[in-house]
Amino acid sequence: MNESMNRQYYLASRPITLPTPSDVPYRDVPVREPAEGEAVIRNLYISLDPAIRGWMSEVNNYIEPIAIGDPIRSSVIGRVVKSRSDLLEEGDVVMSLGGWERYTYGAAAAMHKLDENAGIPLSHFLSVLGPTGLTAYFGLLEVGRPEPGQTVLVSAAAGAVGSVVGQIAKMRGCRVVGMAGSEEKCRWITEELGFDQAINYKTCGDYEAAIRQACPDGVDVYFDNVGGDILDGALMCLNKFARVAVCGWISTYNDPDAPGPKNLWQLVAQSVTIQGFVVLDFQDRFAEGIDQLANWVMAGKLKFREDIVDGLDNVLPTFLKLFDGSNSGKLIVRNPE
Amino acid sequence: MNESMNRQYYLASRPITLPTPSDVPYRDVPVREPAEGEAVIRNLYISLDPAIRGWMSEVNNYIEPIAIGDPIRSSVIGRVVKSRSDLLEEGDVVMSLGGWERYTYGAAAAMHKLDENAGIPLSHFLSVLGPTGLTAYFGLLEVGRPEPGQTVLVSAAAGAVGSVVGQIAKMRGCRVVGMAGSEEKCRWITEELGFDQAINYKTCGDYEAAIRQACPDGVDVYFDNVGGDILDGALMCLNKFARVAVCGWISTYNDPDAPGPKNLWQLVAQSVTIQGFVVLDFQDRFAEGIDQLANWVMAGKLKFREDIVDGLDNVLPTFLKLFDGSNSGKLIVRNPE
Repeated sequence: MNESMNRQYYLASRPITLPTPSDVPYRDVPVREPAEGEAVIRNLYISLDPAIRGWMSEVNNYIEPIAIGDPIRSSVIGRVVKSRSDLLEEGDVVMSLGGWERYTYGAAAAMHKLDENAGIPLSHFLSVLGPTGLTAYFGLLEVGRPEPGQTVLVSAAAGAVGSVVGQIAKMRGCRVVGMAGSEEKCRWITEELGFDQAINYKTCGDYEAAIRQACPDGVDVYFDNVGGDILDGALMCLNKFARVAVCGWISTYNDPDAPGPKNLWQLVAQSVTIQGFVVLDFQDRFAEGIDQLANWVMAGKLKFREDIVDGLDNVLPTFLKLFDGSNSGKLIVRNPE
Repeated sequence: MNESMNRQYYLASRPITLPTPSDVPYRDVPVREPAEGEAVIRNLYISLDPAIRGWMSEVNNYIEPIAIGDPIRSSVIGRVVKSRSDLLEEGDVVMSLGGWERYTYGAAAAMHKLDENAGIPLSHFLSVLGPTGLTAYFGLLEVGRPEPGQTVLVSAAAGAVGSVVGQIAKMRGCRVVGMAGSEEKCRWITEELGFDQAINYKTCGDYEAAIRQACPDGVDVYFDNVGGDILDGALMCLNKFARVAVCGWISTYNDPDAPGPKNLWQLVAQSVTIQGFVVLDFQDRFAEGIDQLANWVMAGKLKFREDIVDGLDNVLPTFLKLFDGSNSGKLIVRNPE
């Protein structure tokens, strides 16, 4: 690749199911000078998250859809190659909203400077100390609100969010059951992360029966990453006043005809609260969250996996791993300098 | 009818769709002596509520299903004809959990004595000062939590719950839009009850478009009595951090194949909270609620309708009016002495 050109993977057409290379082709465009107040960064790490699939659709989500022709939007970490702002200088490392592209241009004021000499690998700011860790932290504690002794069920439990949710719930004194898609993932969350029990959702058969068996006292908090049939099964096992924290329904993103949950009447039967959220809802408390998460990581109380794939040109096939569960841990594309 | 026999409408088989006379036949059984601690009451008013339909199904709801062979459960007001408890004496009027029957037996301690000389028609204790009024009061204020200036949307807005919800929301300074099933009901809620706007859901066509037009600033609180397609339409019009208070989904009770809502992804898109509740969740605050509701009624600030039908033998066809919307206001069967 030619470093003097900006390779961009952009949205050519809105995918109905899984995005294909014709939905997300690339182009090489000349680099340009940043405008006044802007900086341009060379992207080092590109975060791949299920939410990006939502932004490819036309409907307004919590932020506006990606426009046709625009680079695919994602969180990035990059090094400043040129700045026309006093806020940043060449060589600084920043986190920013960027795209699936070699260079990102943006207002320097909207870029968050990182200290690359603090002994923390930069990729962690996209995972456990970034959006996925913060989603787990605020989603569990502020939306799920588990009490000691209660049972917390987590889907996609070996994922970047679910794995952190389960470990925080254990620290809060809960019984924690995780659902994951392979024996290896199930072993990891029980043997390494300390989950009390794991359910392999690909082999367990009837979800409701499997959850009931793993949660003999019922479920007080269900942290839901997937939706679909697993949500329907979990709804049947909820205790009175249970909370369902919903940070996304990955099972439905690529299926426009996905039926709604059938067992929502449990809402009234058990006085249940189902609450959707995005991490940006807690933006004014990010510093608190990062501080707490970093303390746990440093103390060895919080383990996590990063699934880092090299090469910008691998971005689309790597992104698709999110939807068949073949990644393990936070999925990131690295684009080494 | 023979007053010396206890006529009981009981559950012979669990209905799949609307209950029929063969699902709910009657029998005449001899009256018996109350047991120690029990009282027997002659029922004067029998409350007909959508929730009763849920109790006829096999699944555990917030209270256990009605057992096959048992009288259909409902709230009643009756006069004590015999008591074997110091708590009640012959002639007292009480509210109790009872059944579709002439006489109800029960622990005197579980019967709530009413003052029939307080100048309040007894039927009001089953409507605006009873379960439906309390459902509206706590459901709106504790679950919906509207702020002054926000928009509150109410379905089944001419019903016993919805009509009270809308009037309380107006007192809280909200813009209030109600959905009802006839022009007469729409006129009543706007002209008599002070709703800002009404939508006739039987003639409005596309629900989402109709709600959007009636709620130009979006919906902050949706008080949902019906579920189904109206819920799907409302979900699309919710503002960020909107609350959906669900006290029942009458549109789905008689349709076991009712599909789940399609637009639940709005939960995450708008950080919405959907909370189910039943009035019993607020049992320890009933006195406060009744006191406030009675004050509003006395001050003429809260209007309501009761749809009182005479004759125990009309109980099943009267109950069915709830499901085609042909009742207006709180539905009660009176069984005069």
